Amino acid sequence: MNGVTRPSARASRVHGQVHVIGAGLLGASIGLGLRQRGVDVTVEDVSPTTALLAVDYGAGRLRTAEDATPALVVVATPPDVTADVIERALAAFPGAVVTDVASVKLAPFEALTRRGVDLTNYVGSHPMAGRERGGAIMARADLFAARPWIVCRDEETPANALALVEAVALELGAMPLEMTPEEHDQAVGLVSHLPQVVASLLAGRLLPAGERAVGLAGQGLRDTTRIAGSDPELWVQILGANRAPVVAELEALQTDLAAFTAALSDPDAPGARRRIADLLAAGARGVARIPGKHGTSERFATITVLIDDRPGQLGALLTELGDLGINMEDLRLEHSPGAQIGFAEIAVLPEVAERAVADLGERGWRTL
Amino acid sequence: MNGVTRPSARASRVHGQVHVIGAGLLGASIGLGLRQRGVDVTVEDVSPTTALLAVDYGAGRLRTAEDATPALVVVATPPDVTADVIERALAAFPGAVVTDVASVKLAPFEALTRRGVDLTNYVGSHPMAGRERGGAIMARADLFAARPWIVCRDEETPANALALVEAVALELGAMPLEMTPEEHDQAVGLVSHLPQVVASLLAGRLLPAGERAVGLAGQGLRDTTRIAGSDPELWVQILGANRAPVVAELEALQTDLAAFTAALSDPDAPGARRRIADLLAAGARGVARIPGKHGTSERFATITVLIDDRPGQLGALLTELGDLGINMEDLRLEHSPGAQIGFAEIAVLPEVAERAVADLGERGWRTL
Repeated sequence: MNGVTRPSARASRVHGQVHVIGAGLLGASIGLGLRQRGVDVTVEDVSPTTALLAVDYGAGRLRTAEDATPALVVVATPPDVTADVIERALAAFPGAVVTDVASVKLAPFEALTRRGVDLTNYVGSHPMAGRERGGAIMARADLFAARPWIVCRDEETPANALALVEAVALELGAMPLEMTPEEHDQAVGLVSHLPQVVASLLAGRLLPAGERAVGLAGQGLRDTTRIAGSDPELWVQILGANRAPVVAELEALQTDLAAFTAALSDPDAPGARRRIADLLAAGARGVARIPGKHGTSERFATITVLIDDRPGQLGALLTELGDLGINMEDLRLEHSPGAQIGFAEIAVLPEVAERAVADLGERGWRTL
Repeated sequence: MNGVTRPSARASRVHGQVHVIGAGLLGASIGLGLRQRGVDVTVEDVSPTTALLAVDYGAGRLRTAEDATPALVVVATPPDVTADVIERALAAFPGAVVTDVASVKLAPFEALTRRGVDLTNYVGSHPMAGRERGGAIMARADLFAARPWIVCRDEETPANALALVEAVALELGAMPLEMTPEEHDQAVGLVSHLPQVVASLLAGRLLPAGERAVGLAGQGLRDTTRIAGSDPELWVQILGANRAPVVAELEALQTDLAAFTAALSDPDAPGARRRIADLLAAGARGVARIPGKHGTSERFATITVLIDDRPGQLGALLTELGDLGINMEDLRLEHSPGAQIGFAEIAVLPEVAERAVADLGERGWRTL
């Protein structure tokens, strides 16, 4: 694709073989990304079809009897079997470091501790990345680019085990971030699990509505409910495994919702209008805290280029970017039909943004 | 811009002068769109600066003493002064049809009826369009393209008044839809006002959270809270003017939220897991009811073109589209760096989609 180059061919930070158990979206994306970095990746899945699909997709190869113990095993299975698979992996591959990528961290750790499993070689982790649809077919090598990858260590974690898991995260472009399992579960309870429940309950209110009412839906409703389309079964597992933090968040939300509803029901009660305004203003301040809140571009810097409303201008700009060696990661158009000018919003890696603006300016393009 | 042409120069459906009161996002967008269709538009605003900004932006001209009574007055003011401005417009321009674009329809109608205002020439309306940020500077001539534009008539509404308001909606590319004020307010209470409150309360939960937790935010949280960034003052007005339907929706949501929280708190209670799964599944079915739920492309048909990962391929495709006379309304790239192929998702008007696929196919491009 124009302006998009292959990753560099430098040596990988990940030494030794990586074995991925569970070839869904996350497992296959990890395999795909690591293989492109030159790492030897093997994959397995309870479904032989899924495993072969992941192999075809380029996410790795199947293990053979000749394969030695991998340096790292990545458990990328659904949350309700994660603890079991970690336990089996530690037994099957003694000496290998074992990590998992499940979206809850305390429950599997506690389950394994209860069973008395030796967790010296286990390092729990969680890449904060995903897509609405799962499966190997949706895998992307850049799924983890610029996303946080939480790594849970404790005092007994060997330095080399921690280093290996963080190397995988770095190799895939993610940002390793150390947290305790408790801190992790509280944080994702707020920023991931609470929004999921809220979106589902909000979208559920559309079921009894009439066709004409639903037909008025705009972008606001679409955005607030998009993630409600995720797999309910997966979410029953995730929420069940992170019950206490999610319930605490839901109860806090219930309190706010009750206060808001009471104030709106009787706006002439003392302070009611003020409470409504305060809760709405708190929302505006809350959303402003979210880093990089402008859509998918948070991984990249955005350059806005003004384009005259003449045929061929956008094509010329893209050709120019190619000539300048500027890799374009995403492109969006913004224009009002009939207006004299439009805007092309071009996403580039943050480190090339400044040069890109300067080079484009030299060639006569106006940027914002 | 490549592939985007001017609107056709055919005669407008709107005969006579249109006067817009309130030059914010909606008023200025209406003026901009109608002027591009050759309609004589005048604008006024309580802020002279805003009025002049709208004039500079091309949304219309200021009224002069020589101007005759306009055929149509569009009231595009904040909701809490809408009834007052409608009343003044009916008095100031006898014989003119007066419409408003406020996002609630029953409250202004009832307020005017209580005051004994003759509403023969008034037709309430509501274009379902907006942007996060308001103001004339954000105006777009295509803001209303393919969006529903609700028109509220009653038995006394003269046919010519109704026809004039619907002509404006059609001229701006919107879809006129007749509803009673009650039906309208119930519908927007569900699809617009409820999501707004939910997004605000959800985003408000981020305020007490730690920096590290908020730093884990992903696209799900961003999408579910985006509209919480809207102007709280405007929303206090809107929600206050549509109290009964919004309170009913909030109470229904409270019931679901309480049921969900109770079930998650005690998942071993009889039927608890089933209730969790049912509420999540209801959300998935609810979101599936939303028409055109794939982001901004709902106005357009999307063609997905496969592109080889070679420099210049995207530029070549865009040039080809220009040659074929296919107007591209939006473009998104989807690719995994290092993968052999990428996808360009091209938004076009629905009526040209089929021909575009055929023409591109003939020239050797693969489409999905």
